[in-house]
Amino acid sequence: MPRSSRIKTPLILVNFKTYLEGTGENAVRLTKKAERVSSETGISIAVAPQLTDIRMIADQVEIPVYAQHVDAVDAGAFTGHVLAEAVKEAGAVGTLINHSERRLKLSEIDEVVRKTRSIGLLSVVCTNTAAVSAASAALDPDMVAIEPPELIGTGIAVSKARPEIVTDTVSLIKKIAPQVVVLCGAGITLGEDVKAALRLGTEGVLLASGVVKAKDQRKALMDIATAAVQK
Amino acid sequence: MPRSSRIKTPLILVNFKTYLEGTGENAVRLTKKAERVSSETGISIAVAPQLTDIRMIADQVEIPVYAQHVDAVDAGAFTGHVLAEAVKEAGAVGTLINHSERRLKLSEIDEVVRKTRSIGLLSVVCTNTAAVSAASAALDPDMVAIEPPELIGTGIAVSKARPEIVTDTVSLIKKIAPQVVVLCGAGITLGEDVKAALRLGTEGVLLASGVVKAKDQRKALMDIATAAVQK
Amino acid sequence: MPRSSRIKTPLILVNFKTYLEGTGENAVRLTKKAERVSSETGISIAVAPQLTDIRMIADQVEIPVYAQHVDAVDAGAFTGHVLAEAVKEAGAVGTLINHSERRLKLSEIDEVVRKTRSIGLLSVVCTNTAAVSAASAALDPDMVAIEPPELIGTGIAVSKARPEIVTDTVSLIKKIAPQVVVLCGAGITLGEDVKAALRLGTEGVLLASGVVKAKDQRKALMDIATAAVQK
Amino acid sequence: MPRSSRIKTPLILVNFKTYLEGTGENAVRLTKKAERVSSETGISIAVAPQLTDIRMIADQVEIPVYAQHVDAVDAGAFTGHVLAEAVKEAGAVGTLINHSERRLKLSEIDEVVRKTRSIGLLSVVCTNTAAVSAASAALDPDMVAIEPPELIGTGIAVSKARPEIVTDTVSLIKKIAPQVVVLCGAGITLGEDVKAALRLGTEGVLLASGVVKAKDQRKALMDIATAAVQK
Repeated sequence: MPRSSRIKTPLILVNFKTYLEGTGENAVRLTKKAERVSSETGISIAVAPQLTDIRMIADQVEIPVYAQHVDAVDAGAFTGHVLAEAVKEAGAVGTLINHSERRLKLSEIDEVVRKTRSIGLLSVVCTNTAAVSAASAALDPDMVAIEPPELIGTGIAVSKARPEIVTDTVSLIKKIAPQVVVLCGAGITLGEDVKAALRLGTEGVLLASGVVKAKDQRKALMDIATAAVQK
Repeated sequence: MPRSSRIKTPLILVNFKTYLEGTGENAVRLTKKAERVSSETGISIAVAPQLTDIRMIADQVEIPVYAQHVDAVDAGAFTGHVLAEAVKEAGAVGTLINHSERRLKLSEIDEVVRKTRSIGLLSVVCTNTAAVSAASAALDPDMVAIEPPELIGTGIAVSKARPEIVTDTVSLIKKIAPQVVVLCGAGITLGEDVKAALRLGTEGVLLASGVVKAKDQRKALMDIATAAVQK
Repeated sequence: MPRSSRIKTPLILVNFKTYLEGTGENAVRLTKKAERVSSETGISIAVAPQLTDIRMIADQVEIPVYAQHVDAVDAGAFTGHVLAEAVKEAGAVGTLINHSERRLKLSEIDEVVRKTRSIGLLSVVCTNTAAVSAASAALDPDMVAIEPPELIGTGIAVSKARPEIVTDTVSLIKKIAPQVVVLCGAGITLGEDVKAALRLGTEGVLLASGVVKAKDQRKALMDIATAAVQK
Repeated sequence: MPRSSRIKTPLILVNFKTYLEGTGENAVRLTKKAERVSSETGISIAVAPQLTDIRMIADQVEIPVYAQHVDAVDAGAFTGHVLAEAVKEAGAVGTLINHSERRLKLSEIDEVVRKTRSIGLLSVVCTNTAAVSAASAALDPDMVAIEPPELIGTGIAVSKARPEIVTDTVSLIKKIAPQVVVLCGAGITLGEDVKAALRLGTEGVLLASGVVKAKDQRKALMDIATAAVQK
């Protein structure tokens, strides 16, 4: 059974970043809203809270929890680092890797992808160009999320403003490593952004402020999930 | 009341690093041993577990919990970073900064020291030379921990092998910022290493493998705490 | 004879950054203009060109040439690094360290300051706050240049917009390491900015775009040098 | 005409690192030995000296000169950075990228490869595993040099100790980007190491201490070049 069969698509992956609206008890509340919307719509919604909140959240919900980052280190003398094993033990099922706000060296991405695979964590490598997406796919992660950094946080959706970077990514990845699930992100806020993303050949979206900073988080989640249903 | 009155000395600060013996449920068990030894001896023992374990540990013990690292960022769009506020919300009372396995830029140390002070977290800046200790003291943290990296993990105690680096640190810091509490670390394993450290003018020790990787963690903690009592 | 007697003050130190107007043959032409203005006014003007241009420039002028950065490494297996010895051999008399566009870890600044001292290169540690200036002075470099990054390249002179950060720096450094020469930078463009800087207790200025990107580089240099004379 | 037609193979690329035997006047002497051996054997030998030496060397020899590193920055306010344009202006025809002693973020490698291509510099991306080689090839550089870091500087040649990592690299790259020239490095010291490398499908070698630190640099170069002739 292929690894990617563990990933239910379309996938809505919500990155809490270090927003206070997604920290501590706020993170728990937001995750519970996501869980209800997921249950009501049947669409897979996953969350990526801060490291300090992973265990508390994973203990209280059924939906998948991802780390925002793990370091390319093994157990040992690595003060202040984030061990993939620790993230898994705390309840995460996967991790973002190389987010534009936490870029890694190429050799580190390779190490982390192999490490997560060996311990059974799902890997989502974030990328900024079609060429970087192709390069990342060559490392055989579970997912690649293309996110042009200049659109992150703008509310201008990559799937509408830069469709060609998404379709180039999809087509390059399908050539190099067709088993890799492609997500897209940056500026995704509305249901129609999600529909556009899925029409371009992706199997889900990575988003953050569009949900976390929304006045009505539940409504934002419902709008997005409903759009994914209607694809 | 001076900030440092919040710090009960002599202080034994145990860094769990990313050792598996100090991860997850193992981290809870080790912390409970530390709590019992602290209670039996009256000596202050604090622990610095991994980020994912801070909340679970702080929920179950009374002794102080420190983070191993926080990033020089504020709440916002900083995926994969460690917010000082998040660490505090999870139950930490302080944080290590600039450990030799997680060195920071000078401007970041300044930012993190100011940030922790402003939100009420204790700061422990780790240093590698007497000059770096003096420089760190000029940033006015709560504590400075001098740890020559070449001795870390060796079992050869800095307080016995390099006493002059400790006394130079103490004397430079007392000139620049006498309110700063000085700890020392690297190779500290035995009660006699702790006694030597306190005789050199420090007010505590930072240690890791000597306790975390000990065959009998409780015995190692008791040996160290007893030595601190008998000073 | 104190080290700082090798530094003729007031000092005008012009950082060429990676501006094309300060690269290759343009760098030679700009340095020759600086040399003429220095000779005509009697004011010490030094330049900090890119690494690839140091030797060509040092071969053709008498005024002091600084590197913009050197790495904290010794001779050996360090591909792509900048050796202090190599910079000196190419003709530099000193180096900037920790510029806001090339921040270093605290332990690296300590290493580079000691390394430059041991091989006879002058060290200029760049800083962003009064506390960081004090910390840097504790490492005993030859000079500290305080430059609030938010003013760099703005044309709004630190010496007029943020005089308190300059006077705080001067007073903290005089307490910790009175032999250290204090420069200030960020936004310095006009002669009056230089006069203000010297009145605040500094012994020179670090500047870049105000000269390198000036329509008339000679005129900009002459304006600044004349102001330093008239102090 | 394909880009790679500018690269005469087999190519012997000698990295001077920050070895004193390859710094300043020593670098010029070593380069002249390489030029003579290249001329006598007809084998292409290129050198990668330190940044401060590029211009002096390029001015005196005909063989190709590479930089050891350039930064992912454009002309502008980037103190202490290495501009691809500056390296080219100084006489380099190409640059190493991502050497194991100077690892870059994946997004930086992408930027630098595109930048060098746009200004006509040859790019050699160094890699540590077959997967990283495949990823790098997806960025379409001119060359990829596979170098397992654990063998660098050992004198144990990758082409003999780890032939499978070389053949895996060659076969993955030929699938993803067949126009990319594959080199290998790490531990290459003897003529037979070079022969083994070429037999495995590479078109040249990257080496350093085997030549730079050799008692008789000319003899080492001649041994290597002769082996390449006899392939």
